[in-house]
Amino acid sequence: MKITALAGGVGGAKLLVGLAALDDVELTAIVNTADDARIYGVHVSPDVDICTYWLAGIADEERGWGIAGDTFHVVDALRALGEDTWFSLGDRDFATCIHRTDRLDRGVPLHRVTRDIAVSLGVTASVLPMSDDEVRTRIVTPDGRTLDFQEYFVKERQEPEVAEVLFAGIAAATPAPGVLTAIAEADRVVVCPSNPVVSIGPILALAGVRDALRAHRDVAAVSPIVRGRALKGPADRMLASVGARVSAAGVASLYADFVTRFVIDETDAGEAPPVEELGLAVQTVDTIMTDRRASRRLARALAA
Amino acid sequence: MKITALAGGVGGAKLLVGLAALDDVELTAIVNTADDARIYGVHVSPDVDICTYWLAGIADEERGWGIAGDTFHVVDALRALGEDTWFSLGDRDFATCIHRTDRLDRGVPLHRVTRDIAVSLGVTASVLPMSDDEVRTRIVTPDGRTLDFQEYFVKERQEPEVAEVLFAGIAAATPAPGVLTAIAEADRVVVCPSNPVVSIGPILALAGVRDALRAHRDVAAVSPIVRGRALKGPADRMLASVGARVSAAGVASLYADFVTRFVIDETDAGEAPPVEELGLAVQTVDTIMTDRRASRRLARALAA
Repeated sequence: MKITALAGGVGGAKLLVGLAALDDVELTAIVNTADDARIYGVHVSPDVDICTYWLAGIADEERGWGIAGDTFHVVDALRALGEDTWFSLGDRDFATCIHRTDRLDRGVPLHRVTRDIAVSLGVTASVLPMSDDEVRTRIVTPDGRTLDFQEYFVKERQEPEVAEVLFAGIAAATPAPGVLTAIAEADRVVVCPSNPVVSIGPILALAGVRDALRAHRDVAAVSPIVRGRALKGPADRMLASVGARVSAAGVASLYADFVTRFVIDETDAGEAPPVEELGLAVQTVDTIMTDRRASRRLARALAA
Repeated sequence: MKITALAGGVGGAKLLVGLAALDDVELTAIVNTADDARIYGVHVSPDVDICTYWLAGIADEERGWGIAGDTFHVVDALRALGEDTWFSLGDRDFATCIHRTDRLDRGVPLHRVTRDIAVSLGVTASVLPMSDDEVRTRIVTPDGRTLDFQEYFVKERQEPEVAEVLFAGIAAATPAPGVLTAIAEADRVVVCPSNPVVSIGPILALAGVRDALRAHRDVAAVSPIVRGRALKGPADRMLASVGARVSAAGVASLYADFVTRFVIDETDAGEAPPVEELGLAVQTVDTIMTDRRASRRLARALAA
């Protein structure tokens, strides 16, 4: 079956690995690019690279980002040259970014570059950036500061309170070629357990995506919130900032207009009634992807 | 004494190291940038970096370029991503280029970036790129091909015959701030034993430089040609291409209008009469810089 998955960083990548491992699944991943940035003059695409590296089997799974066994000579040398190296990047990871930047600057669109990198690394799933256009998440703090997403996420370690989340450029951006088709032609769409506000949110905000999902009759989403907390990252605090309840049902409420099946963790059964009240079918399984076996198990439940 | 030296790659760098080691010398190096290029999207500045790394004591002196003990993970990863990696660059060397490119793209002029890199690496001599403007050496072959200098020098290993050497952009370029002053205010100007055509040639071709040298009463040049051959690189074949004799005297004839003293190797004493015929004082010493001691010895002879 054809599965098209919407994904962000590590949580999404783990589920993509599980889905890609299923023999009967042909997988397309649509990945958030609103946390892309130019850092050290190169185009970093953290969510796309995390998903690609995990699918290629070269990810540093311990650390969650970058390439296993990578060295850090470039960033160490940049520090010696006086740069503020708050954004770490391994040498091989740097090569990905240098290569991407060079091709983008020559006019090759991001979806082509992204595809070619994935193919070069041996990824058989299709990896699609959500858009070729520049969409950039900005975090507004209660004291009125506006931070680029990576500044908030990496430099300030997600410590500032989030008053508002903006997607700069979203109004003018269109989905990358292939995105709407991948949704329309999928037998099933899967929304990965990624941050609903800053990972899935930008994809949904792209012109035509939400409509394409509403028009689809088989859209499953996995809750990234289990027992009122994010498994990873600041999703729980961000949900509160956007006025959603910090619970599986809170996430479901953000997706209720297009999701047909909502997957919650088996330890979170109390969330089933409020999700059902939203008119969604509830599937209760073990959603915690501690290893590849767990990822495959969750993927199988979603493909069933 | 204040010495200002004009330099290209390895031959120049070795003499700079010797000059910088002299207690009573305050050294400014004016370095060729006409072999700069954008490769992998980053601004490589081979002559400037060679000189800087040698002066910093971190050069790979065996190989002649790059940083001693550098690794090559980035370029290996670029190759894995499908890039044609004919231009090798170590990881720390890549960091220099990434840093330079990022600052240039933010509008910082090359001479500032170059100075800051040198200072960060602990270089006490002043390293000045010849120009902030883009001057690019192109090699025209007898069959009419035009090659970028690095294509000729690295990719095609200096194998093509050279019919003509062009400096694209030279007419619009001006010397970097500090260049003309460094010449005018020097007690002595030294032209290093670098390639007269493609290393020293572009510096001399910049508006005002040759006039500033002619106005100076103490300009010494060291022949890069010993016994009719270049110590390194294609200088001998290039001299022939531009119609100069391939000899120390041939080099002297290119510099005769501004040099007051011409230094030839002690094994090349037969060159003294033709150089003297050009009206230049001849100094005969051991010019072969096999190690730092030899560089210092030649430097002392030049500072004397």
